[in-house]
Amino acid sequence: MNVPETVLTAMRQTNELFNSEVVAKRNISGLDQVYTGNARILPPGAEMIVGRDQIKAFWQQAIAGLGLKSVKLTTVEAESLGDSIVEIGRADLGLTDGQTLTVKYVVLWKQEAGQWKWHVDIWNPNQ
Amino acid sequence: MNVPETVLTAMRQTNELFNSEVVAKRNISGLDQVYTGNARILPPGAEMIVGRDQIKAFWQQAIAGLGLKSVKLTTVEAESLGDSIVEIGRADLGLTDGQTLTVKYVVLWKQEAGQWKWHVDIWNPNQ
Repeated sequence: MNVPETVLTAMRQTNELFNSEVVAKRNISGLDQVYTGNARILPPGAEMIVGRDQIKAFWQQAIAGLGLKSVKLTTVEAESLGDSIVEIGRADLGLTDGQTLTVKYVVLWKQEAGQWKWHVDIWNPNQ
Repeated sequence: MNVPETVLTAMRQTNELFNSEVVAKRNISGLDQVYTGNARILPPGAEMIVGRDQIKAFWQQAIAGLGLKSVKLTTVEAESLGDSIVEIGRADLGLTDGQTLTVKYVVLWKQEAGQWKWHVDIWNPNQ
C-alpha cells in the first residue's frame, strides 16, 4: 500500500460511517458523506446505477430487503493513482436473521470537498 | 474519458484477444498478454485469486464449466489515473447452449513490458 496513514484513517472513517450510520441506523442521508455526487455503483443482479440520489434509493431498498444489520469493511489493498485511490476490500455482512455473508469489492476513491468518498463501487459475493 | 485514442485502441486489442484467443480458441496461454504477472481477479462466487498462473487455472475451468463461446467487451468509461487506467465496462457472454448473459465489470489497467493489461478485474452479473 502506498497510501499515507492519514488517508487510510480517513478512508476507515468513511467506511465506518457506512456501517454505523447508513446500515445500523438506516440513516440514508449519511450516504452524502460516503459517495461522491456523480458516483457509480455496480451491484450484482442489477444494472449500473449512476448518481448519489439513485444510489440512495438503491441502498434504502437493499438494506431493508436484505435485512442488513451491519457491514464490516476491511481494506485488503489500497493504491494511490494520481489524485485517486483504488481499494480492494472485504465486507462482512450481518443480517437481521443472524446469517453472515462475505463480499469482496473494488472501490475507486476520490476527494470531494476535502473528504475521501467512494466514486466507483463494485462488489460480489464470495459464496 | 480522458484516455488517448491510441491507448483505447490498445485496450480494445487486449480485450479482443481475451475473446478471440482465450475464449473462442480456448488458448489459455493467451492470458499472458491479457493479465499482468501479479494481477488479481475477484470472481462472483469465489475468493479473490492472485497471480497469472492461478488466474489461468480459474479461466480454464470457468470457460469449460460455463460453456463460454464468446465474450464481447465494451468500454463504458475509462479514466487515466497516474500511470494506470480504470475502466468500467460491459461484457456480453455467449454460451455454447445459445444462452447469453450480461455482465458488468471494473478493470484496473497497467502497462507491463509496454503492453496494456488487466491488473485488477472484478465483475458481476446484471441478472
